Amino acid sequence: MSGHLAIIGLGPGDAALLTPQASAALAAAEALFGYAPYLARVPEQAGQRRQGSDNREELARARAAIAEAAGGARVAVVSGGDAGVFGMAAAVFEAIEQGDAAWRSLAVEVIPGVSALLAAAARVGAPLGHDFCAISLSDLLTPWPAIRARLEAAAAADFVVALYNPRSARRRAGLAEAAAVLLAHRPPQTPVLIARNLGRAGEAWRIETLAALAEADIDMLAIVIVGSSATRLLPGDPPRLYTPRGYRTASGR
Amino acid sequence: MSGHLAIIGLGPGDAALLTPQASAALAAAEALFGYAPYLARVPEQAGQRRQGSDNREELARARAAIAEAAGGARVAVVSGGDAGVFGMAAAVFEAIEQGDAAWRSLAVEVIPGVSALLAAAARVGAPLGHDFCAISLSDLLTPWPAIRARLEAAAAADFVVALYNPRSARRRAGLAEAAAVLLAHRPPQTPVLIARNLGRAGEAWRIETLAALAEADIDMLAIVIVGSSATRLLPGDPPRLYTPRGYRTASGR
Repeated sequence: MSGHLAIIGLGPGDAALLTPQASAALAAAEALFGYAPYLARVPEQAGQRRQGSDNREELARARAAIAEAAGGARVAVVSGGDAGVFGMAAAVFEAIEQGDAAWRSLAVEVIPGVSALLAAAARVGAPLGHDFCAISLSDLLTPWPAIRARLEAAAAADFVVALYNPRSARRRAGLAEAAAVLLAHRPPQTPVLIARNLGRAGEAWRIETLAALAEADIDMLAIVIVGSSATRLLPGDPPRLYTPRGYRTASGR
Repeated sequence: MSGHLAIIGLGPGDAALLTPQASAALAAAEALFGYAPYLARVPEQAGQRRQGSDNREELARARAAIAEAAGGARVAVVSGGDAGVFGMAAAVFEAIEQGDAAWRSLAVEVIPGVSALLAAAARVGAPLGHDFCAISLSDLLTPWPAIRARLEAAAAADFVVALYNPRSARRRAGLAEAAAVLLAHRPPQTPVLIARNLGRAGEAWRIETLAALAEADIDMLAIVIVGSSATRLLPGDPPRLYTPRGYRTASGR
């Protein structure tokens, strides 16, 4: 099979955070597939085909990209952030496993990117300085009880918790329930970072308290990082959040 | 205060994964601080001072870098991967909080990078396609019972689990205990990625089973990713690991 499929993380949006490896792979592609707003970030190039689609269509997009690569083309599938973190990479391998047996011999390369989580953390300091979890609140493909069980576990074991897909029009109660689970295990003044569109138009971030999270103005594009009991807020302009590297250091302060 | 401190993630080692923002910040620095093997990755530049140090000296290194920036210099502190994930960023903010009150007005910028975790995941497919945790097994600053409690929580709630600092000469039993905790909650054939030096000389990665993890040949520089119960191994050359985007998808296959 002569085609090639690259799954590319575009980073958070700022071109200065797109890796040279990702830039080279985008330039080498004959066809690009992706959620339309992500594709729009990639500079136009003569002779390169583009297939934008809606964000609910990951598996169909993956199949279309694989089929084109299997036909001999150099194809790229793009995701925001890192394609492996709640992005297109898992959808591509799922489509390969479920699809034509010949697809398993296709050359597939995953090109990592700076994830939204890492970019959000860097903007505010170092909230991921110690153990952390990433949990998607989307119940499109995962039953809510499984999501809730993970929230409970992460809250009880005092992980820093990053919430992906925190809210949608269809599902208003998930974030409030997540906040309640976390509040049962850590203080109401625990700092929470809410970040949106980092490195792009409409960039915004702010630090709230865990007590205010349930009612905070948040949409599906935001990423939320809830501090652990050790996470420190340094007031100032800008304020800073960091999680110390260890408990002994924190308690010995 | 006129100085500037940039905390820079160098990515996993391959220059093609160093972001343009990080490259520019490295070039603009008058003085570089870091763990010596990371500093060695940064191209030499005339007139730029360098201060390499041992990997046990994060806080002393952070204080020295802050002091130099507070004196008016443009200073960069480097970490491998992303500086915010078990890297230098938390040490710098800890030093600022504990240090001279004037340090709080220093301009500090954190420049994110492709973390070792994301690079390792990309190399093998998409094992971080659903909820995951990152846990350091280093008990230098965190008591082992706290680490163990996080392992128990992550194992019981079926997170994909990334282990940082999996083993050292001083501490041989931690990894075996972590493996036993995970084995109590997921099948012995659960796939495990062990990766080392990705993108650098001595790069190696392999897929083992959870049953084999306790006895695996692993050192402190490795990163380990243990699949959840949903993580799929696709045999082949190379083999692939991915975690489906949801449970319904996985069980509906």
